[in-house]
Amino acid sequence: MDLASKIRNVPDFPVKGILFYDITTLLKDGEAFKASVDQLAERYAGQQIDLVVGVESRGFIFGTALAYKLGAGFVPVRKPGKLPAETISESYELEYGTNTLEIHTDAIQKGQKVLVVDDLLATGGTAKATCNLVERLGGEVVSVAFFIELTFLHGRDQLQGYDVFSVLKYDK
Amino acid sequence: MDLASKIRNVPDFPVKGILFYDITTLLKDGEAFKASVDQLAERYAGQQIDLVVGVESRGFIFGTALAYKLGAGFVPVRKPGKLPAETISESYELEYGTNTLEIHTDAIQKGQKVLVVDDLLATGGTAKATCNLVERLGGEVVSVAFFIELTFLHGRDQLQGYDVFSVLKYDK
Repeated sequence: MDLASKIRNVPDFPVKGILFYDITTLLKDGEAFKASVDQLAERYAGQQIDLVVGVESRGFIFGTALAYKLGAGFVPVRKPGKLPAETISESYELEYGTNTLEIHTDAIQKGQKVLVVDDLLATGGTAKATCNLVERLGGEVVSVAFFIELTFLHGRDQLQGYDVFSVLKYDK
Repeated sequence: MDLASKIRNVPDFPVKGILFYDITTLLKDGEAFKASVDQLAERYAGQQIDLVVGVESRGFIFGTALAYKLGAGFVPVRKPGKLPAETISESYELEYGTNTLEIHTDAIQKGQKVLVVDDLLATGGTAKATCNLVERLGGEVVSVAFFIELTFLHGRDQLQGYDVFSVLKYDK
């Protein structure tokens, strides 16, 4: 299935000059959504994945479906104040300001094999912060998976040393 | 599987006097998460479900896994300003202030059978607003499904006329 044809290109969102790749047109197509999750899952067939870690909130979309398909647990990484029990946090720089992410301290057991999932690889800051959280808890990042990769933003540079996979790549 | 035993009770979250039912301890257990999604899916076996609509952001967790399992499309309902294309919105009252939800106007075709999913049924405001959005686009709400229902908040009163299903019920 041509998954790229299901993505809607929205110019000037969220700000003027940015071309936004909108996955909602793919998600609402049951066959396309299933094929997308299966394509992610196929990449990890035969590998041990104990946990899928997904970042609020679009990372929950592919992350939970993928966890279900792989038979893995799902761990949410959330914005500050959303997780009810004890957390650790990581902050990273954005173009303007900083962003902070949290994970429950008991979310991962030492040595568990973790797949980090988000919908989009842009500059890589979110994914790198998430990998840091996983490793601080003793988890092993098996791979970092994205549905869409914006290759022109060179997010992989932030993720050197990690196995990185993306289903769709855009070079502009 | 005793799914209730996988839920963590967190007192005084998000504010003093509230007992919070934390699903993250269930989600991180791959078998428990799978059993939870399967239990939701089983309820709808043999029924036509074209789309699962899930509310940002915890509604994405069970919503997308369930859409995957049912072979349905997934439609996110989001906070204002997050969806990139044309939207309609619904506002509803909270204890303090109001909340607004948006859906893409092209998310649902007239006559499509829709399952609305959220993790928690509390007072029912979010679910009711979501049903309104679905119906304004011409969708038919087949059922409204929750993982947890706080029966003492009487959220079903807001959802009269709808089929409502929840996996776990708490009466305090």
